[in-house]
Amino acid sequence: KRSYKITLLPGDGIGPEVISVAKDILLPTGSLHGIKLEFQEKLLGGAALDATGVPLPDDTLSAAKQSDAVLLGAIGGYKWDKNEKHLKPETGLLQLREGLQVFANLRPATVFPQLVDASTLKREVAEGVDLMVVRELTGGIYFGKPRGFGTNENGEETGFNTEIYAAHEIDRIARVAFNIARKRGGKLCSVDKANVLEASMFWRKRVVALAQEYPDVELSHMYVDNAAMQLVRYPKQFDTIVTNNIFGDILSDEASMITGSIGMLPSVSLGDSGPGLFEPIHGSAPDIAGQDKANPFATVLSAAMLLKYGLGEVEAAERIERAVLETLNRGFRTADIYSDGTKLVGCKQLGEEILKSV
Amino acid sequence: KRSYKITLLPGDGIGPEVISVAKDILLPTGSLHGIKLEFQEKLLGGAALDATGVPLPDDTLSAAKQSDAVLLGAIGGYKWDKNEKHLKPETGLLQLREGLQVFANLRPATVFPQLVDASTLKREVAEGVDLMVVRELTGGIYFGKPRGFGTNENGEETGFNTEIYAAHEIDRIARVAFNIARKRGGKLCSVDKANVLEASMFWRKRVVALAQEYPDVELSHMYVDNAAMQLVRYPKQFDTIVTNNIFGDILSDEASMITGSIGMLPSVSLGDSGPGLFEPIHGSAPDIAGQDKANPFATVLSAAMLLKYGLGEVEAAERIERAVLETLNRGFRTADIYSDGTKLVGCKQLGEEILKSV
Ligand SMILES: CC(C)[C@H](C(=O)O)[C@@H](O)C(=O)O
Ligand SMILES: CC(C)[C@H](C(=O)O)[C@@H](O)C(=O)O
Repeated sequence: KRSYKITLLPGDGIGPEVISVAKDILLPTGSLHGIKLEFQEKLLGGAALDATGVPLPDDTLSAAKQSDAVLLGAIGGYKWDKNEKHLKPETGLLQLREGLQVFANLRPATVFPQLVDASTLKREVAEGVDLMVVRELTGGIYFGKPRGFGTNENGEETGFNTEIYAAHEIDRIARVAFNIARKRGGKLCSVDKANVLEASMFWRKRVVALAQEYPDVELSHMYVDNAAMQLVRYPKQFDTIVTNNIFGDILSDEASMITGSIGMLPSVSLGDSGPGLFEPIHGSAPDIAGQDKANPFATVLSAAMLLKYGLGEVEAAERIERAVLETLNRGFRTADIYSDGTKLVGCKQLGEEILKSV
Repeated sequence: KRSYKITLLPGDGIGPEVISVAKDILLPTGSLHGIKLEFQEKLLGGAALDATGVPLPDDTLSAAKQSDAVLLGAIGGYKWDKNEKHLKPETGLLQLREGLQVFANLRPATVFPQLVDASTLKREVAEGVDLMVVRELTGGIYFGKPRGFGTNENGEETGFNTEIYAAHEIDRIARVAFNIARKRGGKLCSVDKANVLEASMFWRKRVVALAQEYPDVELSHMYVDNAAMQLVRYPKQFDTIVTNNIFGDILSDEASMITGSIGMLPSVSLGDSGPGLFEPIHGSAPDIAGQDKANPFATVLSAAMLLKYGLGEVEAAERIERAVLETLNRGFRTADIYSDGTKLVGCKQLGEEILKSV
């Protein structure tokens, strides 16, 4: 029997509810495929702050590092919003990404045919959207130094950050993106602001140089402001997008909202080796936390991604993906994706319905 | 007779066509209101590069500085895309903004009732959208130093930029935004990434401190990734948005695309004193340049803004605004906003129709 260690990080808000559903689906699905999964739950974010005073306890990071894959719920909430930087839940997440060296963040934006009307975009614009944002996750302005607060030559206070990319950081994320584009529609769009920023000019230069190794992938370039427009105007033009940490943060959220069903979208963060980090794209939704209203689909699909990309257990992963589609087809919906004629259920019951379809 | 000097910067692509229409409308409209307008045309962008070797000739900057207002068409094109940074058309525009010290960029995103179906968003989502993005224009990562290309401690090549804001830069743009929000719906949303970036934490701190002086304005804060989503999900929630240079670049383009009629939207860039810079939001559209297909509405509305905000000639400005609406109501459209049952015309003829309505 193949056996794996999974670290679960429920986090804050609706995190614990959706993680609990995903766990209840992972276990029996694994058994059906001869996989033994061993779970350990650890603290991250606000939950960790409240219990230990830091957003990423050493114990959490070392458990995550020693496991085969990490499944995260969501972090953050109003309660900790005014904390100083090193005591923010978000800082724990950034430290985790850095600690695991998961530099490649894959964020699919797919419109489910059953949910196309949930998009605010016209049906003909939203229908069939299926794109992947490959976001650099451990570099750029999120981690660049120098950063902080200072005083300028006029004695005035300042706040500053550094957007910086080294050659290998660009090359490794570009390679991931070229490989993904190759397996998808064969089109890669690199998004930057090379008409203004040196960091972007350098980014573009490295991506262009690498393109020679991927002659079967059609590479294009787009400025980030234009990309933000094109996602609204005609999202179907995109297959795979690769971009830096901050532009990827913005564009992947925009792209996921275009699908209208952000509660459906998983994400994957991978490094060169070591465990991957799997999490829903949505946040901790503190306003509905603990009310059994959360949509667990995105976390369940993240669990499927964990099986596929994290453990190489493709069949078990596809069983979960099929179960999700079947549950959608059987009409079960949480409030965020409910529409006339479908069946409104809570987070827990939706989990049970998915399990029936496994 | 009141007399003003206007510098016209046609620029590249469709720039000359739309500027020529705007000029032909400004002159007679001015006369009707006892205003004498004196125009001088200068080179900027690719046109300036080709003629003089630099994207902003000294002569252009000093003419602009000595005039009462500057009207710009558009700059850039494939031809100069691979130029080195100091020889890019865009660099000329950035130097002009810096030279004129126009730190406040106002970008309205308004859905015209006549054009609501041009939006890719569902009618009920797009209808009635009327928001203003106030973008900081002469600071942040666009101008921050150090910037450039370097070598890191491992001997690896890097590209880098600095996002930096000093107190007075934040305060002055925030004041502009509070004042605009006050005259509009009384709601100001400051967009930042204060959960990650020190530059954003400092931004938020200054904006919060200033809010005391504007008790009648309802201030909120939103992370930039969430703002990119909310613009798609429910754009009507926004009244006035204030944000930094790069986030403003991205979000204002996204917001303008949401209206579906980017060919309709003007923009204004103002400093503390000195001439303002007025330009359409759209780019130089090199693919349709010289074909009499460009939509001149945005430049004509920029000319109206020039009269209103640049010269304080409110009545003349409103005459142009009314003429634009009347021309829309009379059914005249360029190709970008054409729909069944309306009258397709070229750039020049649309200008003549607007003039008839003046
Ligand atoms: C919570 C925050 C630090 C994080 C980010 O900006 O990366 C989030 O927005 C995300 O995209 O995962
Ligand atoms: C052309 C470019 C330098 C410019 C910018 O990024 O500011 C443009 O995108 C704009 O928004 O006016």
